[in-house]
Amino acid sequence: MTIDEIQPIATGGWTQRGGTPTAPSRGLLRPLGLREVTLRTGFWQRRQDVNRSASLAHIEHWLERAGWLGNFDAAGDGRLPGARRGREFADTEVYKLLEAMAWELGRAGDLELDARYRAIVRRVAAAQEPDGYLNTNFGRPGQRPRYSDLEWGHELYSFGHLIQAGVARARTFGADELVDVAVRAADHVCDVFGPDGIASVCGHPEIEPALVELYRVTGERRYLEQAELFIDRRGRRVLADIEFGRSYFQDDVPVRAAEVLRGHAVRATYLAAGAVDVAVETGDTELLDAVARQWRATVARRTYITGGIGSRHQDEAFGDDFVLPPDRAYSETCASVGSVMLSWRLLLAQGDARYADLIERILFNVVATSPSDDGTRFFYTNTLHQRVLGTEPAADTLVPRASSTMRAPWFEVSCCPTNLARTFAGLAAYVATSDDDGVQLHQYAAARVRTALPDGREIGCEIETAYPADGRITVRITEAPDTPWTLTLRVPHWATGATLDGAAVPTGQVRVRRRFSPGDTVVLDLPVRPRFTAPDPRIDSVRGCVAVERGPVVHCVESVDLPPHVPLEALLLDPSIAPEDRDGAVVVAGRLAPLPDGEWPYGTPAPEPGAEPLEVTLRPYHDWASRGPSTMRVWLPLINAG
Amino acid sequence: MTIDEIQPIATGGWTQRGGTPTAPSRGLLRPLGLREVTLRTGFWQRRQDVNRSASLAHIEHWLERAGWLGNFDAAGDGRLPGARRGREFADTEVYKLLEAMAWELGRAGDLELDARYRAIVRRVAAAQEPDGYLNTNFGRPGQRPRYSDLEWGHELYSFGHLIQAGVARARTFGADELVDVAVRAADHVCDVFGPDGIASVCGHPEIEPALVELYRVTGERRYLEQAELFIDRRGRRVLADIEFGRSYFQDDVPVRAAEVLRGHAVRATYLAAGAVDVAVETGDTELLDAVARQWRATVARRTYITGGIGSRHQDEAFGDDFVLPPDRAYSETCASVGSVMLSWRLLLAQGDARYADLIERILFNVVATSPSDDGTRFFYTNTLHQRVLGTEPAADTLVPRASSTMRAPWFEVSCCPTNLARTFAGLAAYVATSDDDGVQLHQYAAARVRTALPDGREIGCEIETAYPADGRITVRITEAPDTPWTLTLRVPHWATGATLDGAAVPTGQVRVRRRFSPGDTVVLDLPVRPRFTAPDPRIDSVRGCVAVERGPVVHCVESVDLPPHVPLEALLLDPSIAPEDRDGAVVVAGRLAPLPDGEWPYGTPAPEPGAEPLEVTLRPYHDWASRGPSTMRVWLPLINAG
Repeated sequence: MTIDEIQPIATGGWTQRGGTPTAPSRGLLRPLGLREVTLRTGFWQRRQDVNRSASLAHIEHWLERAGWLGNFDAAGDGRLPGARRGREFADTEVYKLLEAMAWELGRAGDLELDARYRAIVRRVAAAQEPDGYLNTNFGRPGQRPRYSDLEWGHELYSFGHLIQAGVARARTFGADELVDVAVRAADHVCDVFGPDGIASVCGHPEIEPALVELYRVTGERRYLEQAELFIDRRGRRVLADIEFGRSYFQDDVPVRAAEVLRGHAVRATYLAAGAVDVAVETGDTELLDAVARQWRATVARRTYITGGIGSRHQDEAFGDDFVLPPDRAYSETCASVGSVMLSWRLLLAQGDARYADLIERILFNVVATSPSDDGTRFFYTNTLHQRVLGTEPAADTLVPRASSTMRAPWFEVSCCPTNLARTFAGLAAYVATSDDDGVQLHQYAAARVRTALPDGREIGCEIETAYPADGRITVRITEAPDTPWTLTLRVPHWATGATLDGAAVPTGQVRVRRRFSPGDTVVLDLPVRPRFTAPDPRIDSVRGCVAVERGPVVHCVESVDLPPHVPLEALLLDPSIAPEDRDGAVVVAGRLAPLPDGEWPYGTPAPEPGAEPLEVTLRPYHDWASRGPSTMRVWLPLINAG
Repeated sequence: MTIDEIQPIATGGWTQRGGTPTAPSRGLLRPLGLREVTLRTGFWQRRQDVNRSASLAHIEHWLERAGWLGNFDAAGDGRLPGARRGREFADTEVYKLLEAMAWELGRAGDLELDARYRAIVRRVAAAQEPDGYLNTNFGRPGQRPRYSDLEWGHELYSFGHLIQAGVARARTFGADELVDVAVRAADHVCDVFGPDGIASVCGHPEIEPALVELYRVTGERRYLEQAELFIDRRGRRVLADIEFGRSYFQDDVPVRAAEVLRGHAVRATYLAAGAVDVAVETGDTELLDAVARQWRATVARRTYITGGIGSRHQDEAFGDDFVLPPDRAYSETCASVGSVMLSWRLLLAQGDARYADLIERILFNVVATSPSDDGTRFFYTNTLHQRVLGTEPAADTLVPRASSTMRAPWFEVSCCPTNLARTFAGLAAYVATSDDDGVQLHQYAAARVRTALPDGREIGCEIETAYPADGRITVRITEAPDTPWTLTLRVPHWATGATLDGAAVPTGQVRVRRRFSPGDTVVLDLPVRPRFTAPDPRIDSVRGCVAVERGPVVHCVESVDLPPHVPLEALLLDPSIAPEDRDGAVVVAGRLAPLPDGEWPYGTPAPEPGAEPLEVTLRPYHDWASRGPSTMRVWLPLINAG
């Protein structure tokens, strides 16, 4: 018996299609399900396989070991608060694992994984209280009262992740115990925080997109209204002022009045994603436009070249405009997951290729960077400049979240591994969409797409590519109606010189509308040769530097690739010699600056670089630190930049 | 009756000389007392007067208002913990105010100030417990037990400031109630943390230099031995590992093994100052050399051009070598106070002019920057680049420590105002020293110096100068023996081209040994014309920029000095046109870069600057933000730096 034979209860028509993380009821584009898009051998399928085969078990192991799963048992057994382990939001890592498992089960059934999923669900369900409340950290004798610390308690945030896990299960399987738990939790939240209830919000947004998604699953309008209420309440100083200021949890300015994302970057993106969900479902154009405007300002002024966001360690927050230091970059992995969530929602609503451009950048340069090749170690933060050699944490170490300069197996705050797990499990969802007239390809990966348009016309295609190593993307039609339809391909913003079937195409989107026959191909060639990229002069921290990109992949220099006598900090790039592909790697030319050895580091003009040219091999940034400790930099200083 | 008529009990020979903050029993140079060096009308005397006339009362007002003084009354009345206000280290602000008052009383008696001082001492003394313990935050029913949180509890740190206040009183007045309290506290510390006691240290160093100073006052060797024990214990992982790592409180590496200052910058400097004290008193050359080596490495690689230290907001800590971002610079005022303490101790021990060079830099560019002209508002952090207009906090606001972009009247953590107060009150101590053969002038300010060498020869001089506005320093001898002696003058490291009585002198120290007669003058001319200063190329965050210095004073551009159509971020400096003095201000030439307006801030080469030259007036950095909110930068990007 495979999982497909287990009796599913259909929910919203998604279960046969494999489910999808977000399913708006309107918008320019419609998402496809995890069984409508299947990744084939290549860059992303390899990572998705590792996630399934290694990361899920690794996470489950650590959740047991750290006692965060045990917290639910202790709740059922009456051993709380004494037996509780972990931070106030530890419950959510269990929920995010369940969500990841649900997507994974949706895209490819597996009885053993299903059994593990069900075993965890039983433990979680046993901890739910009769009124639907569920949190191992509040409300029992010896614990703080429920909702007594909305600023830091993360109770609604926890419900949000619980509900998102339930939504994943409902969309990929149908009603089950977890879906029940999630619905009861959502009802509880609406009871307590409704129009006549506690007139406040959670310090950490997340409940907002979760409630809208549960509304989309169940049709229960109360969930949507509650999400709308949370969005409207925030920004009116309903939470206490804290050392970081109310902007930390976006309670400084109402969502529809804000100009840019600010404060804690994960909070900011989750909230904005929920605001898009509310706007789309309620037809609130003003709110949608406000978030789109904030997205544009954030991309133009507060985003790293990797797509990462949040430059401050102190409060895991956005800095001021153009404050994007490469060293001590925070660029939390979870903030990038949130940014994908937000951009995907805006793409579905508005169809603009820029949203998919950002998703591509984030996927190749943050989401692909965080996990180790074997899927059992992770970067919590993603710096763009490592000045000192890191230390590999021992395999059994639980490390503080941002302290490791190498990938670490687990963290005291371990939100990133589970966030990656659910993202990898649902990754195929971001590849393609459909509308009434055809299919749109947003991300390029070897994949198979099979879907039916709303009028019933069935469309299938194979995407053959070695992207991003190679820029050729061949779309081979496998199923097509005998009427014309439109195949839309994204041409990334960096892909000046791209061609479609040999003809030049501008960046943005290219549409091919015709009657296709099975066997037809459309060939998009993207120029992935390496290129120099200069920063806006207002990004002071990288003045006089360039980065090297190749297609969507940001590259870096690692000290392990330098000759032994060359310190990374002495390397100056020669911008007059173009970077080139050689033997599968990117090679640039530079020269070596003698390093001053003074008592005071100010006053001496920069020493002249040596005359001897030097060739240096760059590596994709997402691979960095995979060969042991190294120093690393993405932004390379130019000769004569001072 | 003046305070001089109140009966003092002589202690260590200092009371008639006005006391001195540190009084090592050996070393190359001997400090002078606060009545041996008197500041005259000029840059520093104005600030010292404001400190006396405005800041002391302002601080006392806030200590009452915030309830931190009331904590001591509540302790005596048995109203703790319920009535306690403020953070765990709130007691120390009271102690630092007492220390400031004691120095102020030492340099110039004042019955009214003495009465205020005595009133506070009575309230503090009433809270001391029979065994000498004194802390309003620990040890009572309902409070945590004494010494149950050495990492964060700040109990020994509090004793340190209490003892330093007692030392100030003993040196400037003699035995009194506060000195008694301090001695009993020190005895308690030795009882509890001695060789057979708790084998640990305080998370925040400060007890170490305090105990050595009390040893110097009392001759009680036990205090020195206890300080030595604290120095030796630290760095052996006696404190718990915390999120910031043990380097935060310098418990990662033993003091004598460390290569550079690291971790929390205030902690690092206080500890290093205490280590110098211990090394000097015990003749431990290895320890002294270790701290001197750390000082050199820190100055060469971890210090801002202002002399400020500590670049990280998150943990108020040093970054890695050369990580000195001008925006989000932390550069805590207290860390600079600690750096002056450390450098002064090393100067007394080793006589090297570089220590006095750093003190000058810190005084003019951090210590002078923090307080407002009227002495009632303060910068806690001292950024070198302000990108957005700040907001003036209301006069009655208590703000989080580092959140204000303008000077603020008081902080939730308000260590900086009281640290400044004690520094300004004792400022004259840093001007000059003596040795067996004469007098050394380290800092230039209009002042009068009168002292006696150990052999009884009396020396007096007047220093006449408008420094730093003008570079001429005239030393007029007012008293001199009829035997030769040496007048030593520091020539700052930036003062290439300095002359002494018209003859060129190298930077470092210049010595004039001869028989002087009253009325003789020695004239040092320091070239204070403005100059460009380039950073070490490893300080990535200011690549392609220069700063403008004039004498010891770092300058900056403020937006209030720019024409209305010129945004600060568009200004590019023309390095081919030298900065010049004009009408008492520094003027530089630049051009204006058009600012890109793209959707993505990477990929576009920097736009060409406009052809029109532009003149811009700079201001001393220490004056910035004194004319209302402005944006500001110290490091100015050069034309063509990319």
